[in-house]
Amino acid sequence: MPVRFVLVRPRDPNNIGACARAMANFGFDDLFVVDPYELVWRQTRAAVQAEAVLENARAGSLEEALEGCGLVLGTSALQRRAPKQPVVALPGLGGFLSERLPTRGRLALLFGSEKTGLPNEALTLCHAVLRVPTFPAQPSMNLAQAVAVTAYELRRAPAPPPKGCPKPPAAQQLESLAGLLVAAAERAGYWGRSPRAEKERRARLLVRRLSLEGCDAAILQGLFKRLLA
Amino acid sequence: MPVRFVLVRPRDPNNIGACARAMANFGFDDLFVVDPYELVWRQTRAAVQAEAVLENARAGSLEEALEGCGLVLGTSALQRRAPKQPVVALPGLGGFLSERLPTRGRLALLFGSEKTGLPNEALTLCHAVLRVPTFPAQPSMNLAQAVAVTAYELRRAPAPPPKGCPKPPAAQQLESLAGLLVAAAERAGYWGRSPRAEKERRARLLVRRLSLEGCDAAILQGLFKRLLA
Repeated sequence: MPVRFVLVRPRDPNNIGACARAMANFGFDDLFVVDPYELVWRQTRAAVQAEAVLENARAGSLEEALEGCGLVLGTSALQRRAPKQPVVALPGLGGFLSERLPTRGRLALLFGSEKTGLPNEALTLCHAVLRVPTFPAQPSMNLAQAVAVTAYELRRAPAPPPKGCPKPPAAQQLESLAGLLVAAAERAGYWGRSPRAEKERRARLLVRRLSLEGCDAAILQGLFKRLLA
Repeated sequence: MPVRFVLVRPRDPNNIGACARAMANFGFDDLFVVDPYELVWRQTRAAVQAEAVLENARAGSLEEALEGCGLVLGTSALQRRAPKQPVVALPGLGGFLSERLPTRGRLALLFGSEKTGLPNEALTLCHAVLRVPTFPAQPSMNLAQAVAVTAYELRRAPAPPPKGCPKPPAAQQLESLAGLLVAAAERAGYWGRSPRAEKERRARLLVRRLSLEGCDAAILQGLFKRLLA
């Protein structure tokens, strides 16, 4: 199962390096850093003892990070949030993946910045929220330690091989469908006077809740395009 | 199950702080630092954002660290070592503890320094070696990340409550018995011309392999004392 670790706007170059090392400890090598601050990214790349993982790491937009990813999980301590998506406790990750793992594409694991966690925009792109079961007195984990326990758990209880279920839609296909839904809702006057961003949020969450197969996503895209033509 | 995390001569104050945070994340609060370099310990204690765990942390000798601990596990990546003790892979820790956990006293988990791992002297005081199953290309974990995955695993698969088995000997009792064994071996000309340190190493490992109950350890202590009188 190919896995991509996605760090969203991390602030500390040392933390990025520590994440890379934790990934290497457990045999993972696909690291993507979303919209890094320029100085942070420069210092990260210049770090001595840069891991091979770090040398191959890429930076780019959140959209680029999720390219080719059929399943997206966002990590959160869920302190001040009640997500709309299913919540998976880390020890149950293997079981969850055995049901939901796509036959093709990658699993993307999103980690927020040290201070603020995952921004809401990133959370709406997740099929489920992954929660590390920390204690209430100190729920917030160090970024690289969260990466370490997640990588450890992925190896401890690997997902069984997929059962040949149909190919799920790629992240871009879901985005396109969500965009069509918003356009259709605006045309129809549905979702009333909610601001555009709120409609987009609802549409994104909706298309991820549907557990669409790729061909069904294509059918819906075709239908909405015809309706809106 | 009370657990003590024991760091043996860590070199980086930030790492000690990161260990304390990882422990707090998973609800552990007993941290002992063995023979810290004075400057390191001072900087650790002066750290801003010191966790409650750090404020209560103690420093002292290895002997003091193991006081009251009925079971001692040393963590190692086992790169250049073939230990005499049983080796437990981290995902099997809960199962191991359910068989070996003492009815009283604490479980001590020993972590070596960032550079050199656990010194041999500390390893000979361990009942078993705990191995985090890392990948050969990058086997060596960051200290605080090793603490994090171990703390996570302890909570993920907690040991069942002890079955009321007899009280095992305390660390000091085992040390005393090992000392008597060495004295007896020297008196009897056993273990030939091995240097004293080598005899001590063998005796320490022997008394830990025996899985002695406390009362049997006392019987052997009495017997050897009489023999040596």
